[in-house]
Amino acid sequence: MVITFLTDFGLADDFVGTCHGVMKRIAPEAQIIDITHGIKPGHVLQAALMLANALPYMPTGVHLAVVDPGVGGSRRPLALRDAEGRLYVGPDNGLLLHAADRFGGVTDAHELASPEYALDSVSRTFHGRDLFSPAAAHLALGVSLGDLGPPVDPDALVRIETPEPEIGQSRMRGTVLGVDRFGNIALNLTRAHLDAVGIVPGTRVELVVRGNRYYAVAARTFADARPGDLILYEDSYDNAAVAVSLGSAASLLGVEEGSELLIQVGAP
Amino acid sequence: MVITFLTDFGLADDFVGTCHGVMKRIAPEAQIIDITHGIKPGHVLQAALMLANALPYMPTGVHLAVVDPGVGGSRRPLALRDAEGRLYVGPDNGLLLHAADRFGGVTDAHELASPEYALDSVSRTFHGRDLFSPAAAHLALGVSLGDLGPPVDPDALVRIETPEPEIGQSRMRGTVLGVDRFGNIALNLTRAHLDAVGIVPGTRVELVVRGNRYYAVAARTFADARPGDLILYEDSYDNAAVAVSLGSAASLLGVEEGSELLIQVGAP
Amino acid sequence: MVITFLTDFGLADDFVGTCHGVMKRIAPEAQIIDITHGIKPGHVLQAALMLANALPYMPTGVHLAVVDPGVGGSRRPLALRDAEGRLYVGPDNGLLLHAADRFGGVTDAHELASPEYALDSVSRTFHGRDLFSPAAAHLALGVSLGDLGPPVDPDALVRIETPEPEIGQSRMRGTVLGVDRFGNIALNLTRAHLDAVGIVPGTRVELVVRGNRYYAVAARTFADARPGDLILYEDSYDNAAVAVSLGSAASLLGVEEGSELLIQVGAP
Repeated sequence: MVITFLTDFGLADDFVGTCHGVMKRIAPEAQIIDITHGIKPGHVLQAALMLANALPYMPTGVHLAVVDPGVGGSRRPLALRDAEGRLYVGPDNGLLLHAADRFGGVTDAHELASPEYALDSVSRTFHGRDLFSPAAAHLALGVSLGDLGPPVDPDALVRIETPEPEIGQSRMRGTVLGVDRFGNIALNLTRAHLDAVGIVPGTRVELVVRGNRYYAVAARTFADARPGDLILYEDSYDNAAVAVSLGSAASLLGVEEGSELLIQVGAP
Repeated sequence: MVITFLTDFGLADDFVGTCHGVMKRIAPEAQIIDITHGIKPGHVLQAALMLANALPYMPTGVHLAVVDPGVGGSRRPLALRDAEGRLYVGPDNGLLLHAADRFGGVTDAHELASPEYALDSVSRTFHGRDLFSPAAAHLALGVSLGDLGPPVDPDALVRIETPEPEIGQSRMRGTVLGVDRFGNIALNLTRAHLDAVGIVPGTRVELVVRGNRYYAVAARTFADARPGDLILYEDSYDNAAVAVSLGSAASLLGVEEGSELLIQVGAP
Repeated sequence: MVITFLTDFGLADDFVGTCHGVMKRIAPEAQIIDITHGIKPGHVLQAALMLANALPYMPTGVHLAVVDPGVGGSRRPLALRDAEGRLYVGPDNGLLLHAADRFGGVTDAHELASPEYALDSVSRTFHGRDLFSPAAAHLALGVSLGDLGPPVDPDALVRIETPEPEIGQSRMRGTVLGVDRFGNIALNLTRAHLDAVGIVPGTRVELVVRGNRYYAVAARTFADARPGDLILYEDSYDNAAVAVSLGSAASLLGVEEGSELLIQVGAP
C-alpha cells in the first residue's frame, strides 16, 4: 500500500524523517511517496491546491497531508474516504477537500479519536507525528476508517475557497495561486476564462500589477518565446500562468501567492 | 533491515543521493529513512541532539550519521552498538552518543578499519560515501561489528556536552539548542526546570535577549495564544521552547542556535 | 530495478513527488534513488557533470535526468543505452552524455515517440511528468529501447563541452565547475594538471580572482590546514578544488559556477 505525504514541515528539521519512522514502525511494507514538504508554513490553500493537482498522478492509497496551524486547538483530526476509494488523513481545515473533490467528493469522514491508533503519548504541538502518521500507517495496514473514531457529517467539514476571478469583456482580474521554483506564476484562471475574453496563442496582452504595465504574448510553451519575453500560457495543471522564457516571471513582476493581476487583451 | 541517515550534506548536491547509491549497491533490500540532511554544516551538537530526539521514533536498525568537519584527520571512524541492540555508524566526535545514551549507552565500539567493508578507493574528504555508507550497508546485511575493525573502549569515545542552564529562584538563563522551520526556539530547559521556578500554564514571564525585553505567557500549545503573542511551552521533544502563534519567534527575538535567553517569572 | 533521478525541479513544489507517483503507478516495484533535484534551474552542464560523478556509485538501472529549458520546443526526448548496459532517459541537450561516456559511450539511442509509453495527455511544459517518467518506468519494467521510438544516430546527439583550462609553465587558468553546500570550489582541473605545473602537497600557490590575490597551500584534506586557511586539493570526484577549512571558500573568493581563477605556483 502506498502512503503519499505532503506537509509544510520543510526538510531542514527532522519532522518529515520522524514521521517516516513512525509510519515504518507500524507498517514496514508501506511505500511512502513524498509529494512535497515545501509548502510555506501554514499556507493551507496552497497545500490544498497542490495536493489536488498531484493526486491524479499518484497511486491510489492513503493520502496524508499536514499543514496545521491550528494544531492543539479545537480543529478536528480527520480520516476521509472519497467516492473512488482513496483515503485521506489530516486536519479539518480544508486541506483535504480540493483533492477529494477531484474523485467524487468525500463519502465517509471520521474523527481520529481511538487512542490505540495514535502513539502512546500525543503531544499538543506535533500531531503529524503522534496522531496523523500513525493513523495513515494503520489505514495502510487495512484498519477500517470506522475503527479510527466516530463518523463526522461530510457536509460539516471545514472548506476553504479559491479566490474567484473577475471576468470582463476584454479583461480579467486574477489572483496568483502560487509561484514555482522557476518563477512561473499560476493564476486562478483556466482555458475557459482565456477563451471567454478571446485570448488564443499569439494574442498580445497587457499585464497590470500594482500599476505597472507589462506586455506578454499568449503561447503554448516556453520555446515559443524569445528569452526574456513574458508569455501567458496554460500550465501543466490546467491553470493559466505567466512565465518568462529562461527567467523568473515572479521576480520580474514582483508578485507572490495572493497578488492580484489584471490581464487586458491587446497591446500597443 | 532499516538504515536511518542523518547528515549536514544538504540536498542541493549529489552527496546524499550518492550515499544512497553506495548503500543500495551493497544492500539492495535495505530501506533507507532520511531523518534529515539539513544540519548546518559542521554543527555536531545540533545533529547529536536531533538524532537523539528522532531515534525513539525510528525502527531499530543501523543508524548512520555524518557531520564530520574533521574528515581526513585523526578522528576515528566508528561503528557502535547500544544496550538495546541498535547499531550506529559515524565519526568519533560525539555525534552518536546522545542518541545511544537514550538506549542504555554504548556497549560495543569498533573502529572502521577493514578495507573489505569500505569502497575500493577511500578519498580523504568524503568518508560518508567511501567508508561510513559501506559500513552501514554491510551491517544491514548482517556483518558483525567485530568484522569492521578492532574494538575501542566505549569510555574513550569523544563526547560533546549540552550547555548547562543556570536556574535561580525566579529566573533561569538558558541557551538556544535549535530553531526550527517555524521559528520555534528550543531551549536547554525541561519541564523540571520550569517547575523549579514555578512556571505553569498561564504564568506570565519576561524574556530578556541581549538587553531587549519581551513578554510571554506559559501555554500548552499554539492555539492557547492569540496570533502574534509569544508563548513559553514544552515542545514535542520535551524541551522548553518559545514560539509565536502564526509567526517566527526566532525572527522576533533575533536569536539563533547558541544564543542566551533570560527567563524571569512575573511581568508588569 | 533501480531508477535514479536527477533534475533541477527543487523540492519546494510537487514536481519531483508527482514524477515519483507517475513512475510508481507504472512500475510499483521499482526503487527510485534521488541523486539530487537541486541543480540550478536550466544549468545543463552542472547537471551533466554531477550525473557523471554520481553514476559510478549507483546500481546499474535506468538513469532519468531532466534539466530541460527547451521543453516543448524542437529538442528531442531520448532513451539511450551505454556500452555497459545502463539505460538513460532525458532531453537531447547534452545532459546524459558525460555520464554515458564514463561507461563506454552511447551504443543505442532512440527518440521517445510511442504514445503508449507516455501519459495519455502530454503537456507542453512538463515532459518530466508526462513523457520522461513514464518512459523510465516502462524501461524499468523491461520494455525495450526500440519500443519507445525510432533509432537516432548516437553521433548526432547534442553535446555540451566542459570549458578547457589553460596550462602554462607555472600557472594555470581554470573555470569553476561548481560550488557545493560547504562552499568548496570544484575546478576544471585534475591531478594531471597540478602535476604538470609541479604542485604537490605542501606547495604554496597564489590564487587570482578578478584581480584579487589569495594565498593557498596544496593539501590532501581539510584537516591538513588551520581553520580559515585556503587549501588546493583533489576532491572526492578527482577534480582540483579550493576549500577553506571550517569555512566557505566560495564566499571568501566571491566565485560561482563559471567564474575564472588563475593559479600561480609560489607565493611571497
